[in-house]
Amino acid sequence: MDTLKNNWFTETCELWPGGTFSIEVKEVLHSEKSEYQDIHVLDTTSFGKVLVLDGIIQCTEKDEFSYQEMISFLPLCCHKNPEKVLIVGGGDGGVAREVAKHPLVKQIVQVEIDAKVIDVSKKYLPFMAVGFDSPKLTLHVGDGFEFMKNHSQEFDVIITDSSDPVGPAVSLFQENYFALMKSALKPNGIVCSQAGTVWNDLELVSNTLQICKNQFPSASYAYASVPTYPSGQIGFVLGSLDKDIVFDQPQLVFTAEDEKAMNLRYYSSDIHKAAFVLPTFVKHRLA
Amino acid sequence: MDTLKNNWFTETCELWPGGTFSIEVKEVLHSEKSEYQDIHVLDTTSFGKVLVLDGIIQCTEKDEFSYQEMISFLPLCCHKNPEKVLIVGGGDGGVAREVAKHPLVKQIVQVEIDAKVIDVSKKYLPFMAVGFDSPKLTLHVGDGFEFMKNHSQEFDVIITDSSDPVGPAVSLFQENYFALMKSALKPNGIVCSQAGTVWNDLELVSNTLQICKNQFPSASYAYASVPTYPSGQIGFVLGSLDKDIVFDQPQLVFTAEDEKAMNLRYYSSDIHKAAFVLPTFVKHRLA
Repeated sequence: MDTLKNNWFTETCELWPGGTFSIEVKEVLHSEKSEYQDIHVLDTTSFGKVLVLDGIIQCTEKDEFSYQEMISFLPLCCHKNPEKVLIVGGGDGGVAREVAKHPLVKQIVQVEIDAKVIDVSKKYLPFMAVGFDSPKLTLHVGDGFEFMKNHSQEFDVIITDSSDPVGPAVSLFQENYFALMKSALKPNGIVCSQAGTVWNDLELVSNTLQICKNQFPSASYAYASVPTYPSGQIGFVLGSLDKDIVFDQPQLVFTAEDEKAMNLRYYSSDIHKAAFVLPTFVKHRLA
Repeated sequence: MDTLKNNWFTETCELWPGGTFSIEVKEVLHSEKSEYQDIHVLDTTSFGKVLVLDGIIQCTEKDEFSYQEMISFLPLCCHKNPEKVLIVGGGDGGVAREVAKHPLVKQIVQVEIDAKVIDVSKKYLPFMAVGFDSPKLTLHVGDGFEFMKNHSQEFDVIITDSSDPVGPAVSLFQENYFALMKSALKPNGIVCSQAGTVWNDLELVSNTLQICKNQFPSASYAYASVPTYPSGQIGFVLGSLDKDIVFDQPQLVFTAEDEKAMNLRYYSSDIHKAAFVLPTFVKHRLA
């Protein structure tokens, strides 16, 4: 890795110029160039195992739970009966792990384009790849676009767990992708996409939300704290075919016992409500 | 600065080993060693002017408003009538700037130990040092401990805007400091202290909250998003002499017009409520 010097890996990206996060590496466990991207797995001194794709940190063992729980439970709990769920991307298995926990979910279909990410995760990141073991899951290796073209009005919830909108993932932030998701949803279906952070690129967040609003009668933005992502947080754009949905009011409210049974470490019904409360400068920009 | 290499300043601290944040520097505007600490002011490519004390980023022009607004308005809005306010530390002037905005505040006393920080801020960081111009403010250069020993039952709110608990600021996180603040408060008075982040040092947060609980009948923890602080957030411990206080319900609710008139860019009454909603792993640890 050309960004690894003196045992420190440094993440740089055109999306957040002028500021970088570096992480101390004990050992590079895996390096390969797949058909789609550079894949690295690091063992680090303070963040456990770390998955890096094309030089960008995707998840660390220390804090991945906040992202995986929030991108999964925000849309699932906004839906009255999320029986059938499609995950696009999510090759590490973490989102599948969380979605499978929801008591109303009966069937999960996942489409990940890069089989190598799945293989690497199974070998080095079992705390996430455990998601692939769910009997609810059917895993396809392929293109989410192509998959959705052949599956109309089939899903209650579609979760897009993609990398950032530079390079191959750019298309997942564009209007035709949101239109395709809409066509793959059942009535009252919900989509949730990773959508950047308000501190580094409020313009991108605003654009993605607008694209979602163009396709869906209801749309909103929520965020979670993830210290190893740029600016320490990550946001999600949610769109619903239910024009009367109230995103910040979960349909299924979890008790403390539920949280414990599902091993939820970040998400709770109160966190669900708070995640949609935006700082004033964001509220005004997204209004 | 020995941490400045190839125009990048890197922040390292024993409180967050194994991960570092670096910032691209256009120019080092000021460097000096005061009686208390190393003081640097940087002009950066993406974060504007940056104040660095003993190698740790204290505030950047891009995101300082979230910290300053939250450490000020959380305690002020928890109090029914915060007429007289003491600020300990806060030598950049940012907290004074925010406290002076609150319509019920009549008198602000500030005690900063390092005159050099005030001088540097007035010269290079006028967007924060503007706080020193408030006619409500009386500014003392001196030790907050000594000041409070001579001022009993005098303040409605005490805000401690300190650096992190390594080196000189350690004493501001200890029991005798909280006892001294208690003695300087009027009945139903409130304190608010910067208190670390849950991702990097949940033990420190827990200990500081416990110390506060030992002295005050009511205590709580809230947090704000500040991307240039380690883990992208910062927390606050609040203690109140009012045993019936409900911290997450502001006594004074701001309208959109109020927010605009006070130029609030992060704080709102909704953000106030959401700031006390903690991720599940934090909620359990602090319970």
